[in-house]
Amino acid sequence: MSDRPDLRTRRDVLRAGALGAAAASLAASATAAPVPAAPARHWDDETDLVIVGSGAAGISAAIEARRRGAEVRVYEMLALPGGSSSLSGGVCYLGGGTPLQKALGFEDSTEDMYRFMVAASGVWAPLAKIQLYCEQSLAHFDWLVENGVNYAQRFSAEKELSHEEASLYFCGNERAFPFRELARPAPRGHVPPARNQTGGRRLMQTLLASAERHGVHVATDTTAERLVVASDGAVLGLEIRDAQGMRAVRARRGVVLAAGGFIHNPEMLKKHAPELFPCSPHWGRAGDLGIGIRMGMGIGASVLHMHHGFAVLPLYPPENVLKGIVVNRLGQRCVTEDSYYGVLGHEILFNQGGRGYLIVDRVSDYAAPDYRLVPAAEAPTLAELEARLKLPTESLQRTVEYYNRYAARGEDPLLGKGRDYLAPVSQAPFKAYDLGVEKAFYAVHTFGGLETTVNAEVVNAGGEVIPGLYAAGRTSAGIPVSPYYASGLSIGDGTFFGRRAAMHALSHRA
Amino acid sequence: MSDRPDLRTRRDVLRAGALGAAAASLAASATAAPVPAAPARHWDDETDLVIVGSGAAGISAAIEARRRGAEVRVYEMLALPGGSSSLSGGVCYLGGGTPLQKALGFEDSTEDMYRFMVAASGVWAPLAKIQLYCEQSLAHFDWLVENGVNYAQRFSAEKELSHEEASLYFCGNERAFPFRELARPAPRGHVPPARNQTGGRRLMQTLLASAERHGVHVATDTTAERLVVASDGAVLGLEIRDAQGMRAVRARRGVVLAAGGFIHNPEMLKKHAPELFPCSPHWGRAGDLGIGIRMGMGIGASVLHMHHGFAVLPLYPPENVLKGIVVNRLGQRCVTEDSYYGVLGHEILFNQGGRGYLIVDRVSDYAAPDYRLVPAAEAPTLAELEARLKLPTESLQRTVEYYNRYAARGEDPLLGKGRDYLAPVSQAPFKAYDLGVEKAFYAVHTFGGLETTVNAEVVNAGGEVIPGLYAAGRTSAGIPVSPYYASGLSIGDGTFFGRRAAMHALSHRA
Repeated sequence: MSDRPDLRTRRDVLRAGALGAAAASLAASATAAPVPAAPARHWDDETDLVIVGSGAAGISAAIEARRRGAEVRVYEMLALPGGSSSLSGGVCYLGGGTPLQKALGFEDSTEDMYRFMVAASGVWAPLAKIQLYCEQSLAHFDWLVENGVNYAQRFSAEKELSHEEASLYFCGNERAFPFRELARPAPRGHVPPARNQTGGRRLMQTLLASAERHGVHVATDTTAERLVVASDGAVLGLEIRDAQGMRAVRARRGVVLAAGGFIHNPEMLKKHAPELFPCSPHWGRAGDLGIGIRMGMGIGASVLHMHHGFAVLPLYPPENVLKGIVVNRLGQRCVTEDSYYGVLGHEILFNQGGRGYLIVDRVSDYAAPDYRLVPAAEAPTLAELEARLKLPTESLQRTVEYYNRYAARGEDPLLGKGRDYLAPVSQAPFKAYDLGVEKAFYAVHTFGGLETTVNAEVVNAGGEVIPGLYAAGRTSAGIPVSPYYASGLSIGDGTFFGRRAAMHALSHRA
Repeated sequence: MSDRPDLRTRRDVLRAGALGAAAASLAASATAAPVPAAPARHWDDETDLVIVGSGAAGISAAIEARRRGAEVRVYEMLALPGGSSSLSGGVCYLGGGTPLQKALGFEDSTEDMYRFMVAASGVWAPLAKIQLYCEQSLAHFDWLVENGVNYAQRFSAEKELSHEEASLYFCGNERAFPFRELARPAPRGHVPPARNQTGGRRLMQTLLASAERHGVHVATDTTAERLVVASDGAVLGLEIRDAQGMRAVRARRGVVLAAGGFIHNPEMLKKHAPELFPCSPHWGRAGDLGIGIRMGMGIGASVLHMHHGFAVLPLYPPENVLKGIVVNRLGQRCVTEDSYYGVLGHEILFNQGGRGYLIVDRVSDYAAPDYRLVPAAEAPTLAELEARLKLPTESLQRTVEYYNRYAARGEDPLLGKGRDYLAPVSQAPFKAYDLGVEKAFYAVHTFGGLETTVNAEVVNAGGEVIPGLYAAGRTSAGIPVSPYYASGLSIGDGTFFGRRAAMHALSHRA
């Protein structure tokens, strides 16, 4: 034991929210290498399903397993369960005509939901997963409600949900050009009513309570150390560590890795997703160290989408700032300003070298200094603003002249911005906010993870299933890819494929 | 044996150059899973270093090993050795004041070479590898010459080497804005004189001849099937298959995976590098099936840069077309037209959704139809051209008006195009060539591969070295990242780190 750092101390630091060195040290001590099982391996404990992580994916897997009569163990490295899901907005992306959509008078179809998700995902669209997710969206809604998730029969028309009594809203890029022409938009953001975007806390409190009712015990302060594999590569169990020391747990039906992403592992982030690294805040709870991903890779699992992540650049609310324009380092408009904030952040971060500006006039400016953005320059004319920003000569002036002329008529030939946000940028003074990755508020999280089937089975580089190993949520490469085009995709994917893992493990493995 | 497809047939198809189904079938049959070594494992053969692949990386490893007195086996799945390196231009990116640079009157420094490579690589710059590569560039030049590579004392001033008697040229983005201001440009493209860009054939003939002089025998028509690993994860050897069947080869000092990338494995390409998938041609010989990468992943190796690749969009020669402009789907200029063609292709493919146009006038047009590009539209005025291309109203007209006004004075405030290529686009008729990924000639190859140290040791997801396993060339994640900013980086990296693998295996492993 003497060669290991004191876990108690590290946990206390993590609990206090101080990441940095503590997280790095923890990340470095976890090993990717598995331990092979000797023929007469000793087990300290035995169960049907071992689940690593107690966020939305892990808890959904646990509930689903218990509903099927199985025995489970859930291990959570932090002192409190809930994972990064409890930090999220708690939105689930659901559609196709859910009872809530219908009750609030919105029409939706599985086909429209599918068409939108495929188009918005671009070349990285995980087609099979999207299809299944859309087909089973209504059943998944029912499952959430059966587990106590409460949706208020109230719609919010705002782009960002701030109404504390509403549960349905347009949470993504459905109404932005060109998507509004590719699929009929519908509000698909389903969220338990909560103040100040604490829907994630509310959602996880509800799911954790349901898990407890189902007899699930979450072992906190317990880290997953190593997978135990048979000589044929099948996963037999897991070695865990808690205050009592190391123990080996046999998993008769499988191990589900639901340990989150790797946004708090700086070494992994720099290597696999360097675009996300300079952004801040790195969004997630302290457990997002990539432990599940590395354990899977250590036994030969394939990984996908490792450079992807969400990059939320929230210019709104207030929505009036969207009457301003967003320009790149060349002074050109490059993204429809009324896009979902994950799409806007993606464009600047991944396609524009992490540089850009929000240009506003007196009318479209924020009413008060905003914590998310710092002003880069202010000037009485656009020519002066352009010069202060060191943008190419005439570039910004020409961009605004072109934009204003059409905006005055309610048109945007370049990017199709919605009419509600079209107005000339013409009232001095003019101001530029810096959208550079090192300056603006970019909430970032990772999407890359273990490659899985639609049953959440982990596969190797040859596409062969690794028997006994499952992954869900941000430990897996799931439905969320870059660009992140709607809130609720990550929690939706996590809860849905967490359930799929349990379903498959309990019906297919003896 | 009856459950295996007939290798003879598959090889014959591959030999004939018919890829498609044959390659897919071969890719599907190779397994990522290793075979564990039993304590009393039988070996059919034994050597110091086992090398998979006979391209630039594998052959450099073999020569280096023989120069150090070691015994080697080199296995090549195709009937002819040389790998995709023999299809390449044969350029090595070398600098810091090589004898050839000096003889031809060019000054260069290690620092300038390093500064350029780091800046041009962007956020993905593999700093440690670049540094070592620059520091040892002169020694690597000497090594190539010692092995018979002949460089003619002649410089070519063209952007694309077409002079059959020249050996030194500006092969990358050194002189394009902003790089010319960040580091002193020098010609660093070193290539054996050859006609029609067949320098790669020439280079590989030379290296293969040297290998033969050093006593290296390349076993062709021999596929690597599975790595053999000890229970502690160390690589002990390799199972190979040839016309005589399967054999197990013990590698006392290590196995070097130098089996190329995965550009001809459609399943891997769609999953890991979907941006490259729709491009054509997929550039490389038939062996680029990702076999080395998958074997490494199968035993827990980490992979990096899997979505990266080169995307060469060769507008030039002739260079006069660079007096035209390149615009994106919004009719905006987005890349300095006189950039290296890998940088230009990268911008359109990765940052502009794979869509764009080359706009030329009568003067800047190609003299004759060009096989690389198809015209999208032609018109007597720019307004008509814009309408035919369905670009946003006024977008192209405004772009050209702005460009022309400054080009007439020899300036390009927007993108800093070199003076030699600045001229107004003003002589009707105007023509647009389609730079869409499905229309234009995009030569693409993969860069993603196994994560390695500067000694070419393969590491797992925890950063721990996998004992006995090395990777080089496009089986590893090396110096070439996206954007690919200079010819010769891939061959340079492959030869250099192939050598490093042999050096390390023979000096550090007992």
